[in-house]
Amino acid sequence: MPSIPRLICAALVVSLAASATGLAQTARPPEVRFTTDEAFSAASIPAYAGSHDEVYRHIDANIAEHLAQLQRWVRQQSVSAQNRGIAEMAELLAGDLRGMGFKEVALVPTKGHPGVFGFYDAGAPRTLAIYLMYDVQPEETGWKVPAFEGRLVDHALGRVLMARGATNQKGPERAFLNAVDSIIRTHGKLPVNLLVVAEGEEELGSPNYPEVIDKYEARLKAADGVFFPMNSQDGTGAVSLPLGVKGIAVFELEARGGAHGGPTEAEIHSSLKAIVDAPAWRLAQALATLTAPDGNTILVPGYYDAIRQPTEAEQRLVNGMAAAASPAREEGMRKALGVDRFVDGLSGRDLLSRLLFSTTININGMWSGYTGEGMKTILPHVARARLDSRLVPNQTPDGQLDLIRKHLAGRGFGDIAVRTISGYGPAQTAVETPIVTASISVFNKYGVTPTVAPRLTGSAPYYIFTERLGLPMVMGALGHGSGAHAPNEYMVIDPRPGSKVAGLAQAEKFYVDFLYAFAAMK
Amino acid sequence: MPSIPRLICAALVVSLAASATGLAQTARPPEVRFTTDEAFSAASIPAYAGSHDEVYRHIDANIAEHLAQLQRWVRQQSVSAQNRGIAEMAELLAGDLRGMGFKEVALVPTKGHPGVFGFYDAGAPRTLAIYLMYDVQPEETGWKVPAFEGRLVDHALGRVLMARGATNQKGPERAFLNAVDSIIRTHGKLPVNLLVVAEGEEELGSPNYPEVIDKYEARLKAADGVFFPMNSQDGTGAVSLPLGVKGIAVFELEARGGAHGGPTEAEIHSSLKAIVDAPAWRLAQALATLTAPDGNTILVPGYYDAIRQPTEAEQRLVNGMAAAASPAREEGMRKALGVDRFVDGLSGRDLLSRLLFSTTININGMWSGYTGEGMKTILPHVARARLDSRLVPNQTPDGQLDLIRKHLAGRGFGDIAVRTISGYGPAQTAVETPIVTASISVFNKYGVTPTVAPRLTGSAPYYIFTERLGLPMVMGALGHGSGAHAPNEYMVIDPRPGSKVAGLAQAEKFYVDFLYAFAAMK
Repeated sequence: MPSIPRLICAALVVSLAASATGLAQTARPPEVRFTTDEAFSAASIPAYAGSHDEVYRHIDANIAEHLAQLQRWVRQQSVSAQNRGIAEMAELLAGDLRGMGFKEVALVPTKGHPGVFGFYDAGAPRTLAIYLMYDVQPEETGWKVPAFEGRLVDHALGRVLMARGATNQKGPERAFLNAVDSIIRTHGKLPVNLLVVAEGEEELGSPNYPEVIDKYEARLKAADGVFFPMNSQDGTGAVSLPLGVKGIAVFELEARGGAHGGPTEAEIHSSLKAIVDAPAWRLAQALATLTAPDGNTILVPGYYDAIRQPTEAEQRLVNGMAAAASPAREEGMRKALGVDRFVDGLSGRDLLSRLLFSTTININGMWSGYTGEGMKTILPHVARARLDSRLVPNQTPDGQLDLIRKHLAGRGFGDIAVRTISGYGPAQTAVETPIVTASISVFNKYGVTPTVAPRLTGSAPYYIFTERLGLPMVMGALGHGSGAHAPNEYMVIDPRPGSKVAGLAQAEKFYVDFLYAFAAMK
Repeated sequence: MPSIPRLICAALVVSLAASATGLAQTARPPEVRFTTDEAFSAASIPAYAGSHDEVYRHIDANIAEHLAQLQRWVRQQSVSAQNRGIAEMAELLAGDLRGMGFKEVALVPTKGHPGVFGFYDAGAPRTLAIYLMYDVQPEETGWKVPAFEGRLVDHALGRVLMARGATNQKGPERAFLNAVDSIIRTHGKLPVNLLVVAEGEEELGSPNYPEVIDKYEARLKAADGVFFPMNSQDGTGAVSLPLGVKGIAVFELEARGGAHGGPTEAEIHSSLKAIVDAPAWRLAQALATLTAPDGNTILVPGYYDAIRQPTEAEQRLVNGMAAAASPAREEGMRKALGVDRFVDGLSGRDLLSRLLFSTTININGMWSGYTGEGMKTILPHVARARLDSRLVPNQTPDGQLDLIRKHLAGRGFGDIAVRTISGYGPAQTAVETPIVTASISVFNKYGVTPTVAPRLTGSAPYYIFTERLGLPMVMGALGHGSGAHAPNEYMVIDPRPGSKVAGLAQAEKFYVDFLYAFAAMK
């Protein structure tokens, strides 16, 4: 859940039109002040010159077995929210690492689902930490194939693997491991040492991932960077390379009957509303104080205060993104999302700025009383809403939730419980780092110049790597999928002729090159 | 659903303490101005002098078979909200009427569930219309016996029938028909003609009951009054006799993505909240404009305007109720409802006035997004709330919903759909009518002087009788049950020695006396 809508966002951030009209007028959220109009271009980075033909041939010769590995992964359910198949998936991942030649592999117990640690010692000067998540979202209604059968389906873009986890995140993760396995089988060892640190609670907001890191902190700090396998191409083949993620605070508001009024034990008949206070009304009233009537502008005092202005380097990245975008693609993205208009009618650089640099408070779900068929005239004794707030530098989950608690108490809603569910801060890697250069160079080798974004709008616990361990981190590769957190999630395996997206074999070759490029970085 | 929490409310209105402190200070709802402190007392009505011993003996001799009839009724499911067993229950009722000697019996098709009409021609000068509902609420969790098995259970008050419909409303209805049957079997015919007009959609708000009445309107208008069988005793044996009901308007608010913003097709990832409007926020914001932060004071302009002040007769009834109440019973009622305090800390006559004379807007249920286990960080494309407003004279459902629609549009929430689900106006019978006198006289015969209430706080479609047909209406008899719209609904069959509530045989004798008393009224 506090997961990245990776492809959607990646596609979105490159697809927005350039606009020279400056910033939005509404400006109650802090106005982003651009101090430069220079644009960063990834084309300025030289293409990776290496070629690893023996490994590529191994991949091509074994692609059917490699696809079977992806299917094996998605068929193993691992729904963290419902603890469905989690233990089995952790064992499966650990077994795969052992089988590949990782000499040190361990399940890492936590208060929640276990982590998985693996170390591959290549005796190489450089060490790359690999972040993996082995859990998935619950399946939803609307699937045209069963969500956990790993079926191959014909799609406009080619033959795709359609399953929960196909792109978020088992597909690209197992493709990466296929690449690793291919190098080892071809050359006997990798060009870099690998430290795999996997978790099974990413979709729960990674509440216990710090415990996994705790155990290996010193070894991780000695690494040279962190990588996260991911399908970075949108449906047109374009790539966005994000250099960070937003943080997130997930919390629940609960209104219940009690000393302030309202039924404490159970629902009562709705006619008693005349003399009994209603938790559902209290929740609606409390929620409504958090934002303006537009549902966008946050009215919690101080909520925007911690936000820092984007650096000049970040501004150059956004200018580069805006230059790479077009109004037609912005329109296409609205259609893909089923959205008639964006907030405040924003477009172009204004829209990009809002998307990348602004904090949010969102209602994931709310419920109270009878929600079934027909009607039941009751006065419910409890009402709940689950919310998430996306955080940008330098907001922190605790700091933002404190502001919400203070605000509610100050507005007379001290009876509303505010429960922290999970949270972590944002993560940021600077564009001028060897691991980012290595990544861009490999994309450039394949003629897919990435649009480098200052961050994703989604959230992931990468602050652990970037802020706590002080490591630079990149994510992504050639490959395309869509439908994360939605029905009919897929990853392209065999692109249709003429399609500009990579298939499974091409994605694996990207990962091979990336490992060698990173190993060779000065 | 727009049903009466009959016993809860009946018990409540007699259990509230008298208070001489005057009206509440908050006073944004219209202040009830008392112009008299005189109190009506039902003890002023002479007790019914008749005795129908042969019928009583028939009841006592056949009480096991009479109980079996109640069980037969509750075992026949008839959940109107889910169309479960409705056709079967309508046939069962019609068949019972035929078997009892009703010469004219018909199912009355409507746009919804059928009505049941029955005419028993006693050749008598007086005709009594009998309102029956044959549907029940859906069963909920928390039942200690299966809800539709008609089990007999030991209870603090004695042996009870515990089942959905035991008290709301099949138990007392079938007890009434047992009484009718006993008179016919003993004396060959009834002292009054009966016009039964039953519906199967009371729990849906009686949306199609007017169609049933349409067909028999002229014959019904010629009746002398309307009666509704009901268990009127609370657990202490006390009786409240309500002379009306509140009306109700049931409606749904729905916020969806559309031209104003928000996702139109499906939920999207919550990180997109930065640039996409949220229907769930719109709903919360729109709801919050309907009331003050207390969730009680309605802020819809004009919402209180149609309310008339209570008449002097109604004031005398409330004064009588307050005189019959005690602080200890008010405290007991708070405990029974699981409520620590009533709205604004009200008690005594203030509390009675608020309960009986005020309008409400209540949230029955609201829902949006992911409400299951764990978390799902989505931006939902739709959010809904179902509400009911209880109406007092002279509010009308259409008039009140028009005010809500105008208010929302005027506050910039024209994108929120306001859907009428059902509704009807309040009903009122004056205390000075023969049918009311007949009822009180029979209660007095058994030493249970009723507390006469100007109305129930619940709703039922009695406006059809009182306002449309112009007939006086009374409801209730000896007998006790509880748990309408709640788990473990029951009706007492054999009271424990020392208990002051009537059992099934006593309830049936009340109905016998009432029919004779009404027949003899001048």
